[in-house]
Amino acid sequence: MKKARLAVFIVFSLLALSLLSPARIVRAQGTSSLPIMPLPAHVVEGEGEFPIDGNFGIALKGYKEPRLERARQRFLDTLSRETGIPLWRQAIHNPPHFIVQTAGPSAAVQQPGEDESYHLEISTTDVQLTAPNPLGVLRGLQTFLQLVRITPNNFSVPVVTIDDKSRFPWRGLLIDSGHRFVPIPVIKRNLDGMEAVKLNVFHWRFADDQGFHIESKKFPLLQEKGSGGFYYSQDEVRQIVEYARDRGLRVVPEFDMPCHTASWFVGYPELASGQDPSHSSAIDPTRESTYTLLTGFIGEMAALFPDSYFHTGGDECDVKEWEGNPRIQEFMRAHAIKDGVALQVLFTGKVQKIVAGRKKIMVGWDEVLQPDTPKDVVIQSWRGPESLVEAARRGYRGVLSSGYYIDLNQSAAEHYLVDPLGAGTATLTADQKALVLGGEATMWTDIVSHENIDNRVWPRTAAIAERLWSSQEIQDVDAMYQRLAIISQKLGYYGLRHRLITQEMLERMSGELDPAPLRVLADVVQPPRLYQRQELRTFTDVTPLNRLDDAVPPESDTAREFNEIAKRIASGKATPMDWQQARQWLTLWRDNDAKLQPLLRRSFLTQDLAPVSKNLAQVAQIGLQTLDDLHENRLVKAELRQQNIEFLKSSAKPQAVLLLMVPHSVELLVEATRTQ
Amino acid sequence: MKKARLAVFIVFSLLALSLLSPARIVRAQGTSSLPIMPLPAHVVEGEGEFPIDGNFGIALKGYKEPRLERARQRFLDTLSRETGIPLWRQAIHNPPHFIVQTAGPSAAVQQPGEDESYHLEISTTDVQLTAPNPLGVLRGLQTFLQLVRITPNNFSVPVVTIDDKSRFPWRGLLIDSGHRFVPIPVIKRNLDGMEAVKLNVFHWRFADDQGFHIESKKFPLLQEKGSGGFYYSQDEVRQIVEYARDRGLRVVPEFDMPCHTASWFVGYPELASGQDPSHSSAIDPTRESTYTLLTGFIGEMAALFPDSYFHTGGDECDVKEWEGNPRIQEFMRAHAIKDGVALQVLFTGKVQKIVAGRKKIMVGWDEVLQPDTPKDVVIQSWRGPESLVEAARRGYRGVLSSGYYIDLNQSAAEHYLVDPLGAGTATLTADQKALVLGGEATMWTDIVSHENIDNRVWPRTAAIAERLWSSQEIQDVDAMYQRLAIISQKLGYYGLRHRLITQEMLERMSGELDPAPLRVLADVVQPPRLYQRQELRTFTDVTPLNRLDDAVPPESDTAREFNEIAKRIASGKATPMDWQQARQWLTLWRDNDAKLQPLLRRSFLTQDLAPVSKNLAQVAQIGLQTLDDLHENRLVKAELRQQNIEFLKSSAKPQAVLLLMVPHSVELLVEATRTQ
Repeated sequence: MKKARLAVFIVFSLLALSLLSPARIVRAQGTSSLPIMPLPAHVVEGEGEFPIDGNFGIALKGYKEPRLERARQRFLDTLSRETGIPLWRQAIHNPPHFIVQTAGPSAAVQQPGEDESYHLEISTTDVQLTAPNPLGVLRGLQTFLQLVRITPNNFSVPVVTIDDKSRFPWRGLLIDSGHRFVPIPVIKRNLDGMEAVKLNVFHWRFADDQGFHIESKKFPLLQEKGSGGFYYSQDEVRQIVEYARDRGLRVVPEFDMPCHTASWFVGYPELASGQDPSHSSAIDPTRESTYTLLTGFIGEMAALFPDSYFHTGGDECDVKEWEGNPRIQEFMRAHAIKDGVALQVLFTGKVQKIVAGRKKIMVGWDEVLQPDTPKDVVIQSWRGPESLVEAARRGYRGVLSSGYYIDLNQSAAEHYLVDPLGAGTATLTADQKALVLGGEATMWTDIVSHENIDNRVWPRTAAIAERLWSSQEIQDVDAMYQRLAIISQKLGYYGLRHRLITQEMLERMSGELDPAPLRVLADVVQPPRLYQRQELRTFTDVTPLNRLDDAVPPESDTAREFNEIAKRIASGKATPMDWQQARQWLTLWRDNDAKLQPLLRRSFLTQDLAPVSKNLAQVAQIGLQTLDDLHENRLVKAELRQQNIEFLKSSAKPQAVLLLMVPHSVELLVEATRTQ
Repeated sequence: MKKARLAVFIVFSLLALSLLSPARIVRAQGTSSLPIMPLPAHVVEGEGEFPIDGNFGIALKGYKEPRLERARQRFLDTLSRETGIPLWRQAIHNPPHFIVQTAGPSAAVQQPGEDESYHLEISTTDVQLTAPNPLGVLRGLQTFLQLVRITPNNFSVPVVTIDDKSRFPWRGLLIDSGHRFVPIPVIKRNLDGMEAVKLNVFHWRFADDQGFHIESKKFPLLQEKGSGGFYYSQDEVRQIVEYARDRGLRVVPEFDMPCHTASWFVGYPELASGQDPSHSSAIDPTRESTYTLLTGFIGEMAALFPDSYFHTGGDECDVKEWEGNPRIQEFMRAHAIKDGVALQVLFTGKVQKIVAGRKKIMVGWDEVLQPDTPKDVVIQSWRGPESLVEAARRGYRGVLSSGYYIDLNQSAAEHYLVDPLGAGTATLTADQKALVLGGEATMWTDIVSHENIDNRVWPRTAAIAERLWSSQEIQDVDAMYQRLAIISQKLGYYGLRHRLITQEMLERMSGELDPAPLRVLADVVQPPRLYQRQELRTFTDVTPLNRLDDAVPPESDTAREFNEIAKRIASGKATPMDWQQARQWLTLWRDNDAKLQPLLRRSFLTQDLAPVSKNLAQVAQIGLQTLDDLHENRLVKAELRQQNIEFLKSSAKPQAVLLLMVPHSVELLVEATRTQ
């Protein structure tokens, strides 16, 4: 609770500072304190504001197309939601003080590297948005929406001039509809979120071992047998492609092969490598019939997706399936293929030709980069930035996903500081660097459902979007978090549910109408990072994702802010407000256990949280005692101090598939005490 | 916060009591303590529970139709949301322990009075739902969903046998898409809510002076000129009609005439009575061309809506428009029509013949009941229950809406205690009583937007739905509120947004990420009741509905519960928990003002709340002092006591278009003190 107020307070203070000292306004990099995310390339703030009220009017000038009309309507819908003023109807007829000037069209099929720049000039009386094409207009409209705020006088945007363009041409979000089917409304609202933060590639993955979730008319058994009844019809796909184009988003489809393909074999067992298709997950690369089917299938899908790029996966092949099959062994011997890896090279080469035959450029994961890979293939790096560097050095274009795995419960800061042109690329030439197209956040759905997916994607993906759009020098994590909190709220106007999910799931798992004490606990725990969660809990594709580690966001804002305060207290730099906030939180946590325990007992989904809650109380008790010691400058007994540190370390270990995030901060405090 | 816990506590206590004393289980009226709303006709509770887990399987037996398959899928979707268990896919294939047995079809076009009964039998191992037709199945599935709860062991439903049927055949909700266009997704989720509480009539009103919001292909200028660009296409209407039928809901369209029709005249000025069509709101009943157009239009709409009933409005005619027009005066003289009222009778008679010519039964508001009205016309009573009684006495069927005006910010209890067969009907014969078909909640949209409509409709409409479905003897308001809180939460699983809206609007109006102190104030204020709000604030159809009186629900749960506690304290019947809760709330309210005032100053939408917040603090201060006086049994000075009472009375008056709901309760406390 307090955290949010604090963030707003800081932003307000920065705004106030800006007003006092115009020299501060334009930062070294030309950025500003305005809550825009991603930060624009160049900002000059002025004085005053442009009011938004019932007289607001907006006109489109210059190049016209229906997509621009629809963009205006969506802009007005969002602006109406941001203000509660019913502009969606009137603003088209009102005298226009907001002029959108579009110079010309963008490409018929959106291409990476198209100009997305815009110029936004806001005075006290007029707004001018000019762009070379509709893509820039889309980006500029989002910037305007982010500037809208309420003041003592009205809703308004500040007077400002912004010149903005993107750093990387490929800024994506992967949504994995392979592991789990993701319903269309969920896809749509996430595309809305992508538009809001100026991403431009929706990487849509349709199949994995668990399911095949798109309609093929040529090979209907794929979805009829492999989808469990839930798949996207081709009409729905076309609708999403249109929806994405409206928002300046390309749709790059992925059909992962030759592995992760068990679901294909339910309908077409002859594709499988294994002697028993029901226990096979790799396509058989040795049969001609395989390529006949793939030629037909890729042809059909290439026609469905207009994008120039086509992703054929290629990751994580367990080559033993091939190497252990006598028939395939025989083929390898006959063709002098030394091992399974080499067999995948053969497969990839054939698939690449099929893709190229459809005038598409192949994209693949790391593994597709082999000595003979054609030079136009794009490498998506998931194993580490090194493969991206290697690809660029060898002349291949690449997209970074390693470091942007938003399913792994890392912090926004960790993702934010990963740069596609990071340290490892220092030795690349400028031409080689230009081959690094950008990056993609990856929302794998192994252990996320359509219910909690929004809270894994957002708001953290906005931080990655900023990394990919904004200047490389922008690295201030604290400032990022301040803006992230504001953007997170704005994303609610786009229908995203990330801020609602935790409360809903807490109500469900507790059976309470208002499980306030459970919320207190939930606010300071996180799911374990990286792959530790899977080690602590068994997940299948029908595991109910309804426990606390499913419900909480990947990152505890409260714990992060408490940690900042603890650091200041420990280093003697705390303000009186810091001390007060620390005491308030610690008291809340200490006293929460007594309220929470009876509630935990009433539900089978919360019973295992009892020790976590008890630990939080004890950690808080130590924290309060330590605050007193520090405040009074008391000497503490070395033995007790050591005991406390040990308890804090043990309570920071995973329990009930959760990490309590407070102990580490309290440990900082304890370590700041002096012993007798 | 506390309120919710309290409600759950009470329900838990009741459940516990039930387990202890089986004799208590079946109440006098055959109802139970289970959180079902509307309460079923007959309930027998057993022991134990039927678990809901990944093995859940459900099968349809007996009569089959696609609607039942879809109902099962929606049931599984909702059950999955209620539990987080992904049943939507598996439960169709799992061995079925839940058998749905349907005897036969319902009518091709749903009729009022069709059998909606069902028999639901839940044992520890099996569930049997049997019904004469799909309507009963739909009702029974909803009952089952309401029974789902979490326990220390699992998700489950209790062992119970329910025999249920509806009291009234016409249980409706009017949504007024005339004053404001209500987007399709809003309509859909409200239909889902209607299904959840077993309503069966969606009364859909399409036009008013402010707009004409449905597509006519015969008279396209109606929507092209009269809608401002926002109207339902006929495809969308057909889709909603199907959507409603799937949920056991009839759709009764209303085209209000001859008045409230200004929007018709933008496209067809020749319909207007006034010499200047742009200042006319009444159709000209004297021209033949009027009836030519209406014959065509009603014919088109009658074909679009399959329901056997067709609502032609007829309310609130300002007959002066006719009486002041020389041409119309001339007509009246020529035809010996004595006044405007008589002219409307003539109009209604002609319209009724057009409607009957399309094999539809006319429904109209009170005003259409005239000496010669055909006997099959249904009278919808909005002016008071007397007109319903009069109609029944004269042999007309009627539907009650007076008392169910959910736009007027009355309490759920007030609506709940209005009965279509209330005191005024005592003198009717049994046959006459049978003419009272039921009632309809009316969601007028004069001053509600698609943004806050859910929080005006829900959860209060569930109380009205119970009145219309359940036994007349069920009158316990406290028990109703306990169940209402639980149903309110369940309605969230149907996508209704009533529990989210206030927080979102508070964030927007304050510009804060978490406006906690504003929430404290919001929780104890209400918009003024009945038509007082319109007297205090000017509303046009473009007024932004983004202030606190738009954001808060019509009824403050916190204030209601505080009032109950204050009554117990004043009457010496309070528990120690009551005292503690009262002190806790009063302290919160007293201390809130200091936190809230700086926040209020930062936004133009909250500045006028400053005195309301200040009053709350002073009221709370008086309350705390009075609690001490009562607790210590102190004598207070008569003069101070009187001063306090006067202040409390004045602070209960509307301010900033809001009523502070606490002063009255504190006054009860003050009046319980003794003077020196």
